[in-house]
Amino acid sequence: MGKKVKVIEGGVCAPQGFKAGAIACGIKNPAVERLDLALIYSDFPTVGAAVYTQNQVCAAPVRLSASYLKSAEPRAIIANSGNANACTGPEGLINARTMTAATAKALGLKQREVQVCSTGIIGVPLPIDRIEPRIPELVASLGCEGEGAARAIMTSDTRPKEIAVQVKIGDVKVRIGAIAKGAGMINPHMATMLCFVTTDVAISKAEIVAATKEAVDLSFNRITVDGDMSTNDTVIVMANGQAGNKTITRGGEGSAEFREALTEVMLELAKRIVSDGERVTKLVEVQVRGAASNLDAERVARAVANSKLVKCSWNGNDPNWGRILHAVGYSGARVKEEMVNIHLNGVIVTQNGLSANTDGEKLIAAVSGPEFTVCIDLNLGRGAFTIYTSDLSPEYVDFNRTEYSAVKKK
Amino acid sequence: MGKKVKVIEGGVCAPQGFKAGAIACGIKNPAVERLDLALIYSDFPTVGAAVYTQNQVCAAPVRLSASYLKSAEPRAIIANSGNANACTGPEGLINARTMTAATAKALGLKQREVQVCSTGIIGVPLPIDRIEPRIPELVASLGCEGEGAARAIMTSDTRPKEIAVQVKIGDVKVRIGAIAKGAGMINPHMATMLCFVTTDVAISKAEIVAATKEAVDLSFNRITVDGDMSTNDTVIVMANGQAGNKTITRGGEGSAEFREALTEVMLELAKRIVSDGERVTKLVEVQVRGAASNLDAERVARAVANSKLVKCSWNGNDPNWGRILHAVGYSGARVKEEMVNIHLNGVIVTQNGLSANTDGEKLIAAVSGPEFTVCIDLNLGRGAFTIYTSDLSPEYVDFNRTEYSAVKKK
Repeated sequence: MGKKVKVIEGGVCAPQGFKAGAIACGIKNPAVERLDLALIYSDFPTVGAAVYTQNQVCAAPVRLSASYLKSAEPRAIIANSGNANACTGPEGLINARTMTAATAKALGLKQREVQVCSTGIIGVPLPIDRIEPRIPELVASLGCEGEGAARAIMTSDTRPKEIAVQVKIGDVKVRIGAIAKGAGMINPHMATMLCFVTTDVAISKAEIVAATKEAVDLSFNRITVDGDMSTNDTVIVMANGQAGNKTITRGGEGSAEFREALTEVMLELAKRIVSDGERVTKLVEVQVRGAASNLDAERVARAVANSKLVKCSWNGNDPNWGRILHAVGYSGARVKEEMVNIHLNGVIVTQNGLSANTDGEKLIAAVSGPEFTVCIDLNLGRGAFTIYTSDLSPEYVDFNRTEYSAVKKK
Repeated sequence: MGKKVKVIEGGVCAPQGFKAGAIACGIKNPAVERLDLALIYSDFPTVGAAVYTQNQVCAAPVRLSASYLKSAEPRAIIANSGNANACTGPEGLINARTMTAATAKALGLKQREVQVCSTGIIGVPLPIDRIEPRIPELVASLGCEGEGAARAIMTSDTRPKEIAVQVKIGDVKVRIGAIAKGAGMINPHMATMLCFVTTDVAISKAEIVAATKEAVDLSFNRITVDGDMSTNDTVIVMANGQAGNKTITRGGEGSAEFREALTEVMLELAKRIVSDGERVTKLVEVQVRGAASNLDAERVARAVANSKLVKCSWNGNDPNWGRILHAVGYSGARVKEEMVNIHLNGVIVTQNGLSANTDGEKLIAAVSGPEFTVCIDLNLGRGAFTIYTSDLSPEYVDFNRTEYSAVKKK
């Protein structure tokens, strides 16, 4: 975190005027008692912004939430895990509407003020019978504690992901809280997961939209686990103005501070999503510099971060720089092999496209920790890009072998 | 094989006037006795064609062979396994030249008439001291048996890949022989492996070049195992005219028959490469049809064939059509979710973007064999594309975890 941004307790309930709740509905499996339905609610009117998956095959709740946001501000978010309500046709859309209608009724809101999200298996009808009758109970669970909601949106995540920070806008303290979930189908450029952000900042609609887009670009759009783009990914930000700061407008006073804080919150959660990827063991920061353009740097970063063979090497603590260089070569960026330098966690391994003859044990140590950096300098220009990725483990493959059959057998 | 093309014995030595040989040089590990240096030679002048990797980081032998082919016809191919001679700088280029010079001297050819290939680990200097003095012995091993050469170019392949066919051009029988190797860094659009083809057809230079390009596009450019593009991949075709047919020219008599036979030879070896991919268990043919364009069909086929999550499902005999549809959605092709039909080995699993409610056991059976098809119909137009791919196994990841460290420790 930057020095102006202070981490505080409370998750999505840290900002004033926000409540959260969660209950267990048995969505994935009625026999298993686990939190799987979450609600976040603002006591006060808000301005809001969202980024949804760019996958053309997108889930019913994504379509519905996107259409609602066009004509209303979000006051509540209802989200379930255990079922993505994706590839479920007209029935899926009806079920998503039922979720928003029941929530709006119980909260005294308009239906359009309720955003709805689902995450879990694709192509299985949502068990709306188990969800709808429980929504009054969900609303009754609203309180000042956000961790239940963070747990209720987990699928294959091994731990809940929540954060809250405080930042000064002028002389006024403003709070931002957020929860997120990973952990499969993680690839950038579609905000590939769920993330719900609350803030009590006073801010204009135009500025919250711009700040959200910028923060997503600098965080969730720079992570990848498996290179697969989900059908359900959504980031929603709600700002209710209860901090009492002078309203931030586009490019106006406090804009830079707020954007920095929002980006830091999202980046922190983005990194936690990668390091909690399904059975992965490492969080790897791939920094590319010296590219002919920023776009070229991004191409190189994505090629390296998504290369199955490179990711296999990392899993084995193997400093295989040849595979990194081969991915650089096919990235589509302008590359001069004899100009490329590569550092593994600060230790040089490739100089001018050749082995730097660094001691092997030193290189193995550089890639053996749970987090390390790979810095690739193309030495051609000023283009730069950074992406966060993971290794690829045998356990990841094993974990993802039989999801559909396993769920269908229940 | 089509009915006009008949499989015969003899591999690269089946065509008249070709010889092959192989020896063991201990390139990867001097302590291990295994064939690792191959030679193919035509007793007569040839016309030839080649396709090399499109990776910008490409190995010294690729650079050298490509430059030779610009001004000479290939009469011989020398190839080693165990070391890719890639990312090895000026020294790598000198070593590749040494291989061609020694071969040319022993065979009485010009240096430019010798194509050179290497395959194996990247970034480790080629042990030319173990290769150069043995080249006269390699030349002495030339004979009428091609399997030794097929074995000598293997790296992680579990079996040699060779084939020979006979096809009639007019009234004359013409033969085509070929060997190939996989099995890692297999991704299309760069002829991602080694393949050496011999033929005794009489053919013009322009026609052999065009026929080779077409056959590679329809075979090796339609396979993928790991989505990683190699630094060394090369297909070389040599035609020496000894069959005595009337010389085939571009679009002239016999052109269609020869192209069909050449394509079938390459496609057969391409499929064998995929099914012998590193620790993979399935060969999957992904057919896309009904796309708005052929390019769109290709986008969908490649997205599905390279999706880590889809490939994990196949490994687990899991008919997870939701993952297939999600990859279709992010492929970049025009897609209408409610129009998409998917068949698994002929059994419908997805109709109009929704579960077809086919019996689960039937679907599991459809994806449980060592070979099956996935047919995706977008129902939008006439665009079509087919690609051959594999599953992704825990064993694949485990196999690829420590290549570099393992080799460096020797």
